[in-house]
Amino acid sequence: MIKKMGKQTIRIDSKPRIISAFSIVGPKEGEGPLKDYFDVVVNDDLIGEDSFEKAESTLLYKAVTESIKKANLKEENIDFLFAGDLLNQLASSSFAARDMNIPFFGLYGACSTMTESLSLASMAMDGGFANHVVAATSSHFSSAERQFRFPLEFGSQRPPSAQWTVTGSGSMVLGKEGNYPYVTYVTVGKVKDYGITDANNMGAAMAPAAVSTLYNHFKDTGRNPKDYDVIATGDLGKIGKKITIELLKDYGYDISSNYIDCGEEIFDNENQGTDSGGSGCGCSAVVYCGYLYNNMLSGKFKRVLVVSTGALMSPTSSLQGETIPGIAHAVAIEYGTGGV
Amino acid sequence: MIKKMGKQTIRIDSKPRIISAFSIVGPKEGEGPLKDYFDVVVNDDLIGEDSFEKAESTLLYKAVTESIKKANLKEENIDFLFAGDLLNQLASSSFAARDMNIPFFGLYGACSTMTESLSLASMAMDGGFANHVVAATSSHFSSAERQFRFPLEFGSQRPPSAQWTVTGSGSMVLGKEGNYPYVTYVTVGKVKDYGITDANNMGAAMAPAAVSTLYNHFKDTGRNPKDYDVIATGDLGKIGKKITIELLKDYGYDISSNYIDCGEEIFDNENQGTDSGGSGCGCSAVVYCGYLYNNMLSGKFKRVLVVSTGALMSPTSSLQGETIPGIAHAVAIEYGTGGV
Repeated sequence: MIKKMGKQTIRIDSKPRIISAFSIVGPKEGEGPLKDYFDVVVNDDLIGEDSFEKAESTLLYKAVTESIKKANLKEENIDFLFAGDLLNQLASSSFAARDMNIPFFGLYGACSTMTESLSLASMAMDGGFANHVVAATSSHFSSAERQFRFPLEFGSQRPPSAQWTVTGSGSMVLGKEGNYPYVTYVTVGKVKDYGITDANNMGAAMAPAAVSTLYNHFKDTGRNPKDYDVIATGDLGKIGKKITIELLKDYGYDISSNYIDCGEEIFDNENQGTDSGGSGCGCSAVVYCGYLYNNMLSGKFKRVLVVSTGALMSPTSSLQGETIPGIAHAVAIEYGTGGV
Repeated sequence: MIKKMGKQTIRIDSKPRIISAFSIVGPKEGEGPLKDYFDVVVNDDLIGEDSFEKAESTLLYKAVTESIKKANLKEENIDFLFAGDLLNQLASSSFAARDMNIPFFGLYGACSTMTESLSLASMAMDGGFANHVVAATSSHFSSAERQFRFPLEFGSQRPPSAQWTVTGSGSMVLGKEGNYPYVTYVTVGKVKDYGITDANNMGAAMAPAAVSTLYNHFKDTGRNPKDYDVIATGDLGKIGKKITIELLKDYGYDISSNYIDCGEEIFDNENQGTDSGGSGCGCSAVVYCGYLYNNMLSGKFKRVLVVSTGALMSPTSSLQGETIPGIAHAVAIEYGTGGV
């Protein structure tokens, strides 16, 4: 007997607790609708560093170390760190991990990294390998723009389907005990590619992956969309969100009444110039660690399904004419539901 | 009680079996000293593709699908795929996974990816989450050169400390039963940085990480170097290997009598112009899946410790004056030892 249910879902029997969640964001995110939920809003998106890449690494370092402090733990209490980011060779995570004394698993799932790291962290806890683990990720608007699109100085025009990479980092500490939100299911995504080639329309590229993971989550677990107070995709933005609702209807599931997209929530897209919404690994990370986690603690949300979504294109693959594959991993988190 | 021993090691009680291992290499590797151990040697390192990046992805696709066939299984029997590579955004793995219908965890550990994926794959099996998983990685000389150093057309001169990225991919299928080599311990690496800045001297940058992981493996498990028939680091090359032996002596462990480096073994460095030796994720992958696995099956090696080693620099971080952090993960594999 294995704990896998159906095709893609793992039942996390031991319910590892998320004993702390920490979010740190940039100035723009700190002016958005969720500003009151973040632990720290920085005033300067360079955070005193001399490059955006180093600033991003510092964000991640702060999120991880502060989440450990918030859990009343020390670095030596953490068995493993699961982290990744958008930068080539995971520069943010690798350089942040260099300054910590924690065994490290580097992950790349593009913007799906928050739930990829949380999935593997939950499995490490449930498999009996650890007492405490950390799952974390980060992104930075300015480092992502110059890596994936154009240097900011180029001043390229943004199409309405474009998304705005979130500057921020979220980190969670998992433990075995205490009265905290806990993980009950993990649905691991498959790579899906429906032929989108426009790197300014990532929502459309990622939507089929979100649909596939959501559909399989419901099918594998026997749950329905209504079993969740909130279903939150990572960063599909306005366009991807609409596609996801429509496609899932064709598969027999209507998520429209309790579905949010972290990318749509984090900015006031009309007034902040963020077009289709936020994106980046940091997006679902800070929306979960800030808005959703705190609303779970307060009892407003009892069951949340977080579905971080990643567009797995590389600038090289795009130049070589390849389409954009997407992936999405779902993690069910519950609090006060009395069990699975 | 958790299965973690000491600071960094996990005891893999259920001994997941490596029920198949498949290796595919490029023409140069196919002329090296280990040529008879590889499953496939391709004649053309583009394998009919129109870019080196696509060729690398095809190598990985072939390694994964052929390892599944070799295990007499089908794609739908595989619960999870753990894979990563050196290309930005894991282009090889992401695009290979796009054509498979397997839930996918993308990993980045630079050249440590073979043991990172094998560690997580072993944990997924031991945690009871899966019946069969695949761990895989790849690298390609020509895609790595132009991403990390210079385009081949530039014709840059190679210093003697330079290593030659292996063109190849290795893939292992893990299962629960049968008379095959099995995993007994996983030692998860920490990121170590001793201030090396020369991307043409990666062996020196990775050696401290290898030493740290080896030292902690011996300490955590109570084993000694002599408990292994072979200790194989990933791709430290001649220089890194020497440093590793010397540093470990200072820590009280002498590995000199049964220690090989996959990077030193794969090429005839004197005659093949590969300077300090092979490197790349594919290096330890094909040396394990080819040479070591087959010599375990034949009974020559009963206990092997594979320590893939990664240099976590990015071209951007190097240009910004950062030093090169390293990481190493160790996996103990045994066959016919009668248990742990």
